[in-house]
Amino acid sequence: MSETTNTAQETKKIQIFDTTLRDGEQSPGASIDPERKIIIARQLGKLGVDIIEPGFAVSSAGEFAAVQQISRELQHVEISGFARMMKVDIDAAVKATQDAARRRLHLFISSSDIHLQYQLRKTRAEVLQIAKEMIAYGKQFVDEIEFSAMDTTRSDRAFVIDLVEAAIAEGATIINLPDTLGYALPDEVEELFRSVRTQARGGESVRYSAHNHNDLGLAVANSLAAIRGGATQIEVTVNGVGERAGNCSLEELAMIIETRKSVLQLETGIEQREIYETSRMVSHAMHYPIAYNKPIVGRNAFQHESGIHQDGLLKNRNTYEIMDPEAMGISRSMIILGRHSGRHAIKHRLAEYGVDVADKELTEVYDRFKALADEKKIVTDDELIRIAGETTATQPDPYVLVDLQVLAGSHKSRIASVTVKNSAEGEERSYTGMGEGPLEAVIHCIQQAIPVAAEFEDLEMHSLSTGEDAHGEAVVTIVNNGERYRGTSIHKDIIFAAAQAYVAACNQAVMTGNKRGTKENTAV
Amino acid sequence: MSETTNTAQETKKIQIFDTTLRDGEQSPGASIDPERKIIIARQLGKLGVDIIEPGFAVSSAGEFAAVQQISRELQHVEISGFARMMKVDIDAAVKATQDAARRRLHLFISSSDIHLQYQLRKTRAEVLQIAKEMIAYGKQFVDEIEFSAMDTTRSDRAFVIDLVEAAIAEGATIINLPDTLGYALPDEVEELFRSVRTQARGGESVRYSAHNHNDLGLAVANSLAAIRGGATQIEVTVNGVGERAGNCSLEELAMIIETRKSVLQLETGIEQREIYETSRMVSHAMHYPIAYNKPIVGRNAFQHESGIHQDGLLKNRNTYEIMDPEAMGISRSMIILGRHSGRHAIKHRLAEYGVDVADKELTEVYDRFKALADEKKIVTDDELIRIAGETTATQPDPYVLVDLQVLAGSHKSRIASVTVKNSAEGEERSYTGMGEGPLEAVIHCIQQAIPVAAEFEDLEMHSLSTGEDAHGEAVVTIVNNGERYRGTSIHKDIIFAAAQAYVAACNQAVMTGNKRGTKENTAV
Repeated sequence: MSETTNTAQETKKIQIFDTTLRDGEQSPGASIDPERKIIIARQLGKLGVDIIEPGFAVSSAGEFAAVQQISRELQHVEISGFARMMKVDIDAAVKATQDAARRRLHLFISSSDIHLQYQLRKTRAEVLQIAKEMIAYGKQFVDEIEFSAMDTTRSDRAFVIDLVEAAIAEGATIINLPDTLGYALPDEVEELFRSVRTQARGGESVRYSAHNHNDLGLAVANSLAAIRGGATQIEVTVNGVGERAGNCSLEELAMIIETRKSVLQLETGIEQREIYETSRMVSHAMHYPIAYNKPIVGRNAFQHESGIHQDGLLKNRNTYEIMDPEAMGISRSMIILGRHSGRHAIKHRLAEYGVDVADKELTEVYDRFKALADEKKIVTDDELIRIAGETTATQPDPYVLVDLQVLAGSHKSRIASVTVKNSAEGEERSYTGMGEGPLEAVIHCIQQAIPVAAEFEDLEMHSLSTGEDAHGEAVVTIVNNGERYRGTSIHKDIIFAAAQAYVAACNQAVMTGNKRGTKENTAV
Repeated sequence: MSETTNTAQETKKIQIFDTTLRDGEQSPGASIDPERKIIIARQLGKLGVDIIEPGFAVSSAGEFAAVQQISRELQHVEISGFARMMKVDIDAAVKATQDAARRRLHLFISSSDIHLQYQLRKTRAEVLQIAKEMIAYGKQFVDEIEFSAMDTTRSDRAFVIDLVEAAIAEGATIINLPDTLGYALPDEVEELFRSVRTQARGGESVRYSAHNHNDLGLAVANSLAAIRGGATQIEVTVNGVGERAGNCSLEELAMIIETRKSVLQLETGIEQREIYETSRMVSHAMHYPIAYNKPIVGRNAFQHESGIHQDGLLKNRNTYEIMDPEAMGISRSMIILGRHSGRHAIKHRLAEYGVDVADKELTEVYDRFKALADEKKIVTDDELIRIAGETTATQPDPYVLVDLQVLAGSHKSRIASVTVKNSAEGEERSYTGMGEGPLEAVIHCIQQAIPVAAEFEDLEMHSLSTGEDAHGEAVVTIVNNGERYRGTSIHKDIIFAAAQAYVAACNQAVMTGNKRGTKENTAV
């Protein structure tokens, strides 16, 4: 349900300022090493962000080197050099961004009384003086100066206006009014931007930027409010990562603007098709899992469990989808099968694997499916196919994990033995393997048993209840022929669960291959 | 930075309608079994929600029984019986909620043309007729009728008003205008409520409810907008669970209203101190991990990595905190230590464990900490204590995991052997154990080695990069004396990582116990 733009000339371009590598990287426990930063910056370039803030150059030699290399390489993106109002910071930021084709210096100082009193231990007059001096100092080296009044939304308004006027007088070209603690409400943010813009001397001669944190869940809404108030740049992070509850999420903001462009009359330079890849890359680099229900990029974002919704989707996707996941590089949304699923959804899913269930058999398949769905939470595709196979006497799982033994621990190599039944041949064979971890050893066994070029991509595990005897859920993602397959399994033994999930993912790849021949798939 | 209310009489009470057990339970793969529903409903009662929608009674016998038992037991909360516009649904909902002290019937039908055309295959006139008949039918049994026009925000406004007028005429007392697909913008939602309320005949005689989905990340902001437009009830779920990207998050909405009550002039009946416990309970029951950066309840929501923020917090918490995590039942926010952490934070953290580092030693501790922080992402408390211990020749880890072997797989029992060094005695001892999974077997060994009453609470594991030889990160949470301790570890062998994380958590419990004596802790 993407909307078309009314008239091109009325549409306002919003600059996307990505600070994933600076503010985002301050997520607790989520540092990104310098080499990874460069890889992510390249992807951000492909994604189409307008400005990249690659790090805090003064903070370490590694940070400096990353900022420097990204400035050298990303010649089509503006680079932001981030610095406190201190000569040592400014010198480092200026030097690190020296080779950028376009760059700005981003200088910040707190403006709220509580920060002045407890952290900076300076008076307003002192802060004003420092800001003036440091902006003038930075302006000698860099023409484009972004000034941020940290904690603006908890600051005295008159003082913010004084600071902004002084910053503009000294040559600041972009004024950022951050909601550093995610404290503001949308109406307040809109009013803040409007009043600073119209009341500060020279306020109409500069551009405005918003930098909203998500402590109360309002970062994205506050960014839209800032745009209404006159901001033309929004500072965002991929997946909304960042300190505490994080920053305004790039993908949410971009997709609001895309999905509702005819109403908002806004646009960004974001390439939708790169959104999912960027999200996954950042998640992996930061070791930061994405919430199942994260808008746009969460694994459930386009998944429907309710029978009513599934039924509607099968009739017309627009009934329950406002965005097209494939346009964002997300494989066509799977509908997860559970006890809310209806008969149509079951028949449809089986057909996707080439399993055609006659109506007289469907009732039995459906009843057995419902019984399993009542017992477990999710019915995986391969479980469903197994049910259909047992009912219709066709299409059993190509490979079944019969037995597994693994010896793991602190010694050098882990050894594993696995017995797998090849359903087509009706034969069980055993394999042995070694690896640095027990799962690697097991996978090395299974790879001998199942002839599919499966690249292991991701494993997530969770305990499903409290206590050391809890069941574990394993979700394994593999890549075969450029397409992703996910297998899930639940078992008390987490290694067994992971192995079963891996076999399930391989079975899906095998069955899809059987059905499609040697299909070439361009999605992801 | 909680605000005080200006004047009590101006404050408007917002009713919190919790649909975690109905709409939330439609999260893909997250069904809650009926017994668990009852436990969660009790907790929702303690949390102070005004209305509970316990399920979809007609959908299965288990659902019916859960709705019935919750209606019988939760006599201080209003119960919502959810039903499509069909007699069979209404009969089930009416019967299941029969014993509630207070109840309503919640009837819904789609109002958007796309749903009418593709899903319902009915004309507007037919839908209007069904709505009239079914509301009249329900009204015979239940006085309080909530009418929901599904997909209101994508519906023709005149038809919505026709439907609402008809619903009011037939006896509906609450009008819900849902943003079923999370498509609307805040301004649109505010305008929708205002115009329906003022334009529908009888529109001022009923109450209004909002039910917003989060597909574009705006569910919470849209709920605030609905309140501005005249809604006095908001439908929410704990942790924002639900179909796709989920629903408006209870804890975010409640904490916005609490944190900004003087500006908003709103209040809810939510007991802040029950928020965290409720969130954890729902997360566990649905097997649905909470995002690290989820506002309010995410593990990072009150954690600060930046050295600037940490420094400010140590001077005055209000510099970087707008809410008090302890008031919500969250243990005092730990500041995660990483390479952005400063010397103050390191000294402060060590002092919490009773490790007093003299200034001359602090430099060496800090340098070694920084080196480790550059190499890894997080420096755990026990790693820091180990560094301090090696530097200051005091306080080594009480227990060190020296060796581990485990035999796991598909056979009945998993056997493990573990060697643990007791640092105080300087002795290594080996233990054996069995369990239903390899981790349980290992924990049974470790429990013999470490005499601390540690209740295993949670395990999360993630692969930290792509490929089957990726490192795994394990995060183990234990409960000792009513207090939670978390241990983390990264290793190629996921079982070894989990075991190390468990030992690390136990070490923290032991050291805290040593320091505090037999402290009684009321937090959590």
